[in-house]
Amino acid sequence: MAVYTDVSESELGAFLESYAIGQLLSYKGIAEGTENSNFLLHTSSGAYILTLYERRVDKNDLPFFLGLMEHLAKKDISCPLPVRRNDGEVIGTLAGRSAAIITFLEGMWMRRPTAIHCREVGKALAGLHLAGADFQLSRANALDRAGWRKLWDGSRARADEVECGLLTEVDAEFADFERNWPKDLPAGIIHADLFPDNVFFLGEKLSGLIDFYFACNDFYAYDLATCLNAWCFEKDNSFNLTKGRALLAGYQQVRPLTDAERQALPMLARGSALRFMLTRLYDWLTIPDGALIQKRDPVEFIRRMRFHRQIGSASEYGLV
Amino acid sequence: MAVYTDVSESELGAFLESYAIGQLLSYKGIAEGTENSNFLLHTSSGAYILTLYERRVDKNDLPFFLGLMEHLAKKDISCPLPVRRNDGEVIGTLAGRSAAIITFLEGMWMRRPTAIHCREVGKALAGLHLAGADFQLSRANALDRAGWRKLWDGSRARADEVECGLLTEVDAEFADFERNWPKDLPAGIIHADLFPDNVFFLGEKLSGLIDFYFACNDFYAYDLATCLNAWCFEKDNSFNLTKGRALLAGYQQVRPLTDAERQALPMLARGSALRFMLTRLYDWLTIPDGALIQKRDPVEFIRRMRFHRQIGSASEYGLV
Repeated sequence: MAVYTDVSESELGAFLESYAIGQLLSYKGIAEGTENSNFLLHTSSGAYILTLYERRVDKNDLPFFLGLMEHLAKKDISCPLPVRRNDGEVIGTLAGRSAAIITFLEGMWMRRPTAIHCREVGKALAGLHLAGADFQLSRANALDRAGWRKLWDGSRARADEVECGLLTEVDAEFADFERNWPKDLPAGIIHADLFPDNVFFLGEKLSGLIDFYFACNDFYAYDLATCLNAWCFEKDNSFNLTKGRALLAGYQQVRPLTDAERQALPMLARGSALRFMLTRLYDWLTIPDGALIQKRDPVEFIRRMRFHRQIGSASEYGLV
Repeated sequence: MAVYTDVSESELGAFLESYAIGQLLSYKGIAEGTENSNFLLHTSSGAYILTLYERRVDKNDLPFFLGLMEHLAKKDISCPLPVRRNDGEVIGTLAGRSAAIITFLEGMWMRRPTAIHCREVGKALAGLHLAGADFQLSRANALDRAGWRKLWDGSRARADEVECGLLTEVDAEFADFERNWPKDLPAGIIHADLFPDNVFFLGEKLSGLIDFYFACNDFYAYDLATCLNAWCFEKDNSFNLTKGRALLAGYQQVRPLTDAERQALPMLARGSALRFMLTRLYDWLTIPDGALIQKRDPVEFIRRMRFHRQIGSASEYGLV
């Protein structure tokens, strides 16, 4: 929640001369997104989001992220459409940073999603997987098991400060994944971060998917497992079976899971919980208090990881 | 720059049932305002600002602030119009806080204002003074000399940490103000915080005055002196005479200053510089690093205070 870089009206005005989106009427830094600076623009032609890409984003990945949004939007996935500049490009430079303008999507993210929302998210995620199949670019998942290992190496020694016994527990998870992580599941473009704050609704209708800045190529079922973690647990870390059933049914309505994917789901969900636990743990231990980046408690993902370890079959998530 | 309080879609939806502003389409926490939580709302009838009043604002002052905006807007001052609820009130409760909705004003605040902007601000400030004359409510200036004294008592002992010699210097200012602060100048409703981030422009045309949460009754010329401090100094703390001349001419075009006001201007400008120095100094010394409130360096207002002490006559500001 931050605007890391302010932009002056004259800088922005000059930047917008490269676009055909009308006259600038207002811009407000918005308190969303943890990685980049985002501004909500009003122009005479409508509302847009201006993003300045900060240091955590690799500039070389921007053509993938923005190209993917454009690809998906053209396939009628409800996601922002990057606005092309007059020179045909989608990436410019503003205030010394790479910058892009995307269309603004109306809608609200659900602080307390219901099973109905979960079903819609399942459908949208499967739709995204299908629509991404013929996207020409690819990007390795920077937060694959090798990426997790790097985060763990940077926080392992102090892990027990967060929860006693965590060091031994996570070491054992890594050892298990080493032996049993699934291979050869159906794979392609995944969103990789489809948490509630990245999905907009108008009433019960899903109106938009946003924030494709973790998108990459990986197992489709891993993306679904992340949604189980992101959408189907309550504030007290209990799993809501009704939501799980709705999410999985919504997904399968559009893209049925293979037998291998069904079998792999508990392991993938454990891995996904570990991935979010590790980024939070690393930030928790390394970012100084008072930095603009909001730190989130890793503990809730420790609980999810343990929950998934008890799961014998994906039917316990509500998969039918 | 912060959103202190998040609001869920369902809470906000219920809150909006008390208003006739159409269907909620989106809301974004915006990184503006240092005292309250602000959201930019899009509804089917347009754009609005939702403000949740946080602890620094006294709830008892809200009828004054919101009533003033309504009074001024009805007199064609470009300022937000508070939206009345279906029950006729302008103040409701949301997320445990007093809350109000005001119309959204398009326009940008000038990070680098020119003399043309300064002239427009002068005109608008005088217009505000005239339009406020028949407003029925009044509010004492909480940051009058007694208020400054409280801030000083809370930071005096550590003042020399910020700048060596500051303790002696400010004590002497207080003593001088005790003897020489003007009395009986023309007074009425003042904005009291008309810095560039509270004034919107579309091109060179002033499109809005915002943030009336320091408004109060005090000398008109003190408000003008604050604008000298806020608009007419450069980043290197040098006074820009061209801007001073434009601001003062703009003001006098709408409301000519009396002789007493002209004579008092250097003293008022010193006092205003001290007032902003003191709030910054107090925050600087008392707010912990890492709090969401952004702390601003008091030093630039020490420089302005010293500048005004050298001024013999208001003509040195460009007053004709």
